[in-house]
Amino acid sequence: MNQSIATVLNQIDETVDQSIETLMEFLKIPSISTDPAYKNDCATAAIWLKNELEKIGASAEIHETPGHPMVVGQMGSGDKHLLFYGHYDVQPVDPLELWEHDPFAPFIEARPTGKVIRARGASDDKGQLMTFLEACRAWMKVHGALPCKITFFFEGEEESGSPSLVPFMEENKELLTADLALICDTAMLTPEVPSICASLRGMLKDEFTLIGPNKDLHSGLYGGPALNPLKEIAHLIASFHDADGRVAIEGFYEGVTDTPERILEQWNDSGFDEAAYLNGVGLSKAHGETDRTTLEQAWARPTLEINGLWGGYQGAGTKTVIPSKAHCKLTCRLVGDQDPDEIRIALRKHIEDRLPQDCKIQWDLDLDGAKAAVMNTDRPEFDAARKALKAEWDREAVLAGMGGSIPIAGYFSTILGMDSMLMGFANDDDLIHSPNEKYGVKNFHKGIRSWARLLNELAN
Amino acid sequence: MNQSIATVLNQIDETVDQSIETLMEFLKIPSISTDPAYKNDCATAAIWLKNELEKIGASAEIHETPGHPMVVGQMGSGDKHLLFYGHYDVQPVDPLELWEHDPFAPFIEARPTGKVIRARGASDDKGQLMTFLEACRAWMKVHGALPCKITFFFEGEEESGSPSLVPFMEENKELLTADLALICDTAMLTPEVPSICASLRGMLKDEFTLIGPNKDLHSGLYGGPALNPLKEIAHLIASFHDADGRVAIEGFYEGVTDTPERILEQWNDSGFDEAAYLNGVGLSKAHGETDRTTLEQAWARPTLEINGLWGGYQGAGTKTVIPSKAHCKLTCRLVGDQDPDEIRIALRKHIEDRLPQDCKIQWDLDLDGAKAAVMNTDRPEFDAARKALKAEWDREAVLAGMGGSIPIAGYFSTILGMDSMLMGFANDDDLIHSPNEKYGVKNFHKGIRSWARLLNELAN
Repeated sequence: MNQSIATVLNQIDETVDQSIETLMEFLKIPSISTDPAYKNDCATAAIWLKNELEKIGASAEIHETPGHPMVVGQMGSGDKHLLFYGHYDVQPVDPLELWEHDPFAPFIEARPTGKVIRARGASDDKGQLMTFLEACRAWMKVHGALPCKITFFFEGEEESGSPSLVPFMEENKELLTADLALICDTAMLTPEVPSICASLRGMLKDEFTLIGPNKDLHSGLYGGPALNPLKEIAHLIASFHDADGRVAIEGFYEGVTDTPERILEQWNDSGFDEAAYLNGVGLSKAHGETDRTTLEQAWARPTLEINGLWGGYQGAGTKTVIPSKAHCKLTCRLVGDQDPDEIRIALRKHIEDRLPQDCKIQWDLDLDGAKAAVMNTDRPEFDAARKALKAEWDREAVLAGMGGSIPIAGYFSTILGMDSMLMGFANDDDLIHSPNEKYGVKNFHKGIRSWARLLNELAN
Repeated sequence: MNQSIATVLNQIDETVDQSIETLMEFLKIPSISTDPAYKNDCATAAIWLKNELEKIGASAEIHETPGHPMVVGQMGSGDKHLLFYGHYDVQPVDPLELWEHDPFAPFIEARPTGKVIRARGASDDKGQLMTFLEACRAWMKVHGALPCKITFFFEGEEESGSPSLVPFMEENKELLTADLALICDTAMLTPEVPSICASLRGMLKDEFTLIGPNKDLHSGLYGGPALNPLKEIAHLIASFHDADGRVAIEGFYEGVTDTPERILEQWNDSGFDEAAYLNGVGLSKAHGETDRTTLEQAWARPTLEINGLWGGYQGAGTKTVIPSKAHCKLTCRLVGDQDPDEIRIALRKHIEDRLPQDCKIQWDLDLDGAKAAVMNTDRPEFDAARKALKAEWDREAVLAGMGGSIPIAGYFSTILGMDSMLMGFANDDDLIHSPNEKYGVKNFHKGIRSWARLLNELAN
């Protein structure tokens, strides 16, 4: 190990408590992007990031958008130019009653497997984002200058479909284009095995209201003759999948290609603990397409999931009502060359073709979808990342498929012609998007060290 | 018309504004029985009724129960002994945002078809209950004594399954037994055609939670392999009915008998306006069993209705969650000799037989069901009622099947050996159990007159 990186790692270790303190400050800001009630908090989070960037010596600016603001910072110089992307917004916190503590009062909890930071956003994405920023801070402290040019790019709408992102990127191509984008918003394969993302699933979101009778009805007066939208929505949802777990919407699998045998084999040999992955969440087997392995289902196959479903009476006791309306929120994960616009058309046609007489539908969402992304793993930076991760974690990094959707990688490619490299330090059980979200202190600490090692590899 | 009734009717007409004022006072009490938050309001409603009974000269007592109190009053004397039953509790008001006014701030609204009183409970059952009480008040004012002995029996748990009713009746047989029970909790066939109930459907209520993963999951990390309880609950609900609208639960139709041809013919000739009944609520056809008429579906056939369905994210925007739980509230309307206990067993077996691996179920309700009831329409009081109704409404009263469930009639029969006669003055579009519930001022006024006429018929 050269002297340059050893002193930086030492600096990281000595100041890790301060790094945690800084992250806790960040986590106290309830920057929920999807709910308009938190608009000011999103702005506060953006200002907080701008200040942090300036503290480590970057120039930084807030860029207003029709939604939540972007933060862009610049520092360092040299031939090599990296862009680091992260998002300061977080998921909603409901159901709030399942949180054991205030989601925005972060604290350290000692668990048998090590200390964790508990708060909404601890893992997704504030904690992960800060690993890179803290690596830069330590590097600056030791060397006074970064080994390359770095652009920081933070958005605040990742959890709500990033409506302002594409227009902003199109208007700021010069500002944002670098040699490679780095993203820290993914998980490790296991708590011991680091991973670099080889592919990401795309995403389509939709939402609808089914309307039957023109008002809520009494089931004594109308039960029998009345169309019940709760029954009808159940029939519609039941038509989305066949008995083998495949999505039964015509044209849904257009553009889907099978994962190559050699990749599947690599996944099978990756040390992925299938039993732990499933049993940890109360499942004894994988419930997706019956002819696909668990990892293939999660990393390389498209899905249609119901994320929210409601109608009628939800209060205490009973109410003999036949409601007028039923509601459904759903998302599709996309792979390969699946086109989100085409899938949306096919999904809506599937539903509208099956609407019973007297049943109306209202489409409640109009967001762009995102195609799946396959990374250019032949680039030399991927080798550098594997070396850095191996040195830090003492395990070979896996080039993994990832089930989540991070549309930004696709936009960097199509709008800026820039490849992306994603490496992250979350664990699968971090409860991102769920109550009691956490991020391991060790993950945070070694994450910072991993980025410092990568900067060192890229500088040499 | 004899002098005795003419003066009573005159008294009713002269004091109807005061009767409306009194009802409005009653409607201001938010006596929602199903929600524990309104416990005190239910007690207030009971006390209010006790006071009203005492004002018209009855002796009255509050009887505490483990739930909401019973009110029992007595007045009059003679060989003939009638019991009048009503309930002072009302349905929950949600969705509150669909009410155009505070549900507990009653007011008179002038509509093209006449004035109505708007408030939760206006029709079900406070307004209807008060028709009888106001008839007695007018009779007392004119004659100083009722023409027969009357027991008033008011409960406060009708909208929440009447858990205290059976034990109370069993402990108070002597107090409550009369020659015949009168109940005012039903609708007229049309706004012009009065009706007397010939049969009532029974009721079974159930509620369950489907539990899949042991926590809410992120659909990026788990979408594909994870079991989604929202999808599974949709499949379960979709299995409840076949394509012909029949309930597909094994054994469900045991005890159901076909309605005799002559009754069906009478219904067909009754003047029931099928188009108005359906179109008024936004439907173009009846959606129940395809081989049954609309009236048969509503009056004489059993049903299974979903009254509430929910799980996952319901807030603004989207959330890529696979929830741990899905919830369903349902009710069955029963006819003929269907046994609610047996149906509950069959329903639960149907669901449990279809539970996928890794899916647990929790049954969230443990309420007794109620069998259907067929009235003893050969009794002379039914003739008296037809005479009274004909005189008041100038139309022959129909002996109608009724779709709603009023378990009390069954209890009067099985526990007290007492027949019941139900006549009510609600309209089908009164929005009972829905936002903006109403009761026609004309219905209220002529309802009071109808009861006075019946008392007169029974006295002669």
